[in-house]
Amino acid sequence: MSKTLCGVDIGGTKCSIALVDEKGQILDKIYSCDHVDKNEEGRIKMVAENIKEILRRNDLQESDLPGIGMGCAGHIRFRDGVILTTSNLKGFKNYPLREAVQSHFKIPVILDNDANAQAFGEYKFGAGQGFDDMVFLTISTGIGAGIIINKKLYRGMTGTAGEFGHMIVEPDSELTCTCGNRGCLMACACGMALPYLFEQKLKEGKKSRLNLPPDFNMSRMSGQVLKQGLDMDDPVSKEVISDCGYYVGLGIYNIFQALNPPLIVLGGGLTNWGESYLNKIKSTFYELARDMIFDPIEITVSNIAADAGVIGAAALTLE
Amino acid sequence: MSKTLCGVDIGGTKCSIALVDEKGQILDKIYSCDHVDKNEEGRIKMVAENIKEILRRNDLQESDLPGIGMGCAGHIRFRDGVILTTSNLKGFKNYPLREAVQSHFKIPVILDNDANAQAFGEYKFGAGQGFDDMVFLTISTGIGAGIIINKKLYRGMTGTAGEFGHMIVEPDSELTCTCGNRGCLMACACGMALPYLFEQKLKEGKKSRLNLPPDFNMSRMSGQVLKQGLDMDDPVSKEVISDCGYYVGLGIYNIFQALNPPLIVLGGGLTNWGESYLNKIKSTFYELARDMIFDPIEITVSNIAADAGVIGAAALTLE
Repeated sequence: MSKTLCGVDIGGTKCSIALVDEKGQILDKIYSCDHVDKNEEGRIKMVAENIKEILRRNDLQESDLPGIGMGCAGHIRFRDGVILTTSNLKGFKNYPLREAVQSHFKIPVILDNDANAQAFGEYKFGAGQGFDDMVFLTISTGIGAGIIINKKLYRGMTGTAGEFGHMIVEPDSELTCTCGNRGCLMACACGMALPYLFEQKLKEGKKSRLNLPPDFNMSRMSGQVLKQGLDMDDPVSKEVISDCGYYVGLGIYNIFQALNPPLIVLGGGLTNWGESYLNKIKSTFYELARDMIFDPIEITVSNIAADAGVIGAAALTLE
Repeated sequence: MSKTLCGVDIGGTKCSIALVDEKGQILDKIYSCDHVDKNEEGRIKMVAENIKEILRRNDLQESDLPGIGMGCAGHIRFRDGVILTTSNLKGFKNYPLREAVQSHFKIPVILDNDANAQAFGEYKFGAGQGFDDMVFLTISTGIGAGIIINKKLYRGMTGTAGEFGHMIVEPDSELTCTCGNRGCLMACACGMALPYLFEQKLKEGKKSRLNLPPDFNMSRMSGQVLKQGLDMDDPVSKEVISDCGYYVGLGIYNIFQALNPPLIVLGGGLTNWGESYLNKIKSTFYELARDMIFDPIEITVSNIAADAGVIGAAALTLE
C-alpha cells in the first residue's frame, strides 16, 4: 500500500495542512488564514483540528501516517521541538510547539525550520532526487537554507545550521538585516532589500520606466513589481535584479567553498525573476569559482515550487 | 597492544614522517628538507624510504600499522588520492600521489589535504576530544580548515569542502588572494595580508615603534615581526593584529551560521599572537552572533600545535 504523508506549514498569516503521496504530490489540502487572531493555544487547537478533519474526509486513521511533519519559520531547537525565536508568528517565543501538537496525537510529530523542511522536500521529491548531498536556498522576503549531508538534514548543535542568509558578505553595507547586522546576504539580496536598492538607483539619477504612482510607498517595492519592470525592460528594475543576483552568486560561491556540494537548489519567490536573474547568479558564481571547480556542480531551480512548504514538512516524516 | 600510527606531512620545503602513539604523542620522527630539489618520483622514493627507515629503527613491520596517513597542502581529490593543484609543491599537478606511495606498501595509504588532516588530529587527540562535530581553522601564511561532522571529516563532492579561507567577506577589498579573488577571508586576515595591512597603516600616517631598518623589505612583514611589535606595544602592529582578528571573528561568525558547530578550534602560526588577538576574534564573533547563540559554542586554540601536520596525517588512519 502506498504511504500517505501529512505536512503542516505554519506561516505568519497562513497555515497549510496537506496530505501528500509518496511522490510528493498533494492529495488534499486545508488552508487557513484566520490563525493570526488566535493566541498560541488557539492556533495549536486549530492545527490539530484541521489535521483530524483532513484525515476524516480522506477516510484515514492517524495510524495510516508515519507521523506529522511541521515546518515553521524561525530558529527551532530541533531536538526538543521548541521554537526559540520567530519573527513571523506573534507569541511562540521559546515555545514547545512540537509537544503542544503532539499532545493531540499518538503518532510522532516532527518540527523543523521551514527552510530545512523545504530542503528535505526538494531532496526527496524535487531536484535533489538521486543526490546524497545538496544545499537548498530559498530567496523571498528573507533567505533561508537547508543542508542535506549523506541523505539527511544537517542541523548542527542547536538545529540552526544552514543560516546562509545571515552570512556576512559586505560588512560595511548600508543594508541592515532583521538580525541587526550589516551586509548579511539576506540584507543585500532578498525581498527586504528591494525598497532600498530601488530607491538608491533613483537617487543616483537613474530613470525607471515603471509607472509608479507619485504617492507610491517605496516600502512596497516587491519582487512582483520588479518582475513587471523586468518584463517592460525597465533599466532600474533590471539593475536591482542583477545586483541581487550578484550577491546570491557570491553567497553560492561561499557555500561551494564551505561544503563543496554537487547540487545547489534555489527556491522562493524571487526565482520567478527567471532567466536573467539566474544567469547573473550563475555567471557570478563561475567567475569566482573558475579553476577551483574540479567536479561539475549543478545550480538549479526548485521544481516543487508553490507548495514547497507543506510538501517539505510532510517529507520530514520520511527522514 | 597499543597501536602505532604513521603520518607523513608533505610541505613545500620540508617533509616530516613520524610514528605517533594512540594518544597522539610523537614516538619518532624523520625530518627532511632536501626534497625540493627532487622531481616527483624522487620525492616519492624519499618518502617511501624514510617510512621504511623509521619502521626499521623502531623494530616495526608494515603490518603493525593500520595504514599510512599523508597530509599535503592543496586541493586533493580524496576518493582518488590525487593532488589536483598545489601551490606549495613544484610539479604534482593532477598527480596520483596516493597511488605512487601505495605502490611501495601493502597497508592502505590515505592522502588528504593538510588542514583536513590537522582537523582530524585535533578531533582525535586535541581540543576536539569528546565532540562529534567541530570546525578547525588554521591561520598562518594562508587559511585552511577542516570540518568534522558526526566523528568524520566532511569532504564534500571532490574533497575540497571546508575551504573557508576562500569565503569572500569583503568583495571590494584591495586585497587579492592567491586564488585571484578579492576579499577572501584569506586575503584579509592571514600571513600574506600582513605586508599590505602594515604598509597601509604607515601610509595613513601612523607611526610604528618597531625599529625596522630603512631598507626593510615590506614583503617580509610577518607574524613574528608583528609579535615583536605587539610585545613592545607598537600601535601599528597592534592595529594590524586587531584587523586580522576582526576578519577571523567575522569568518567564524559565518561558519557558525553555516554549520552551527559546538566547537571551533584555531591553529596555525598566527595564534601565537596570543590573548589580545584571540580576544578580538571572540569579541567580534559575539558582537555579531549576539542573541542568535542558543547553545554554548566553544572557540579555542589547538593544543597539538607544533607537530599538528604529521600528527593529523597519522590520525587519518584512524578515521
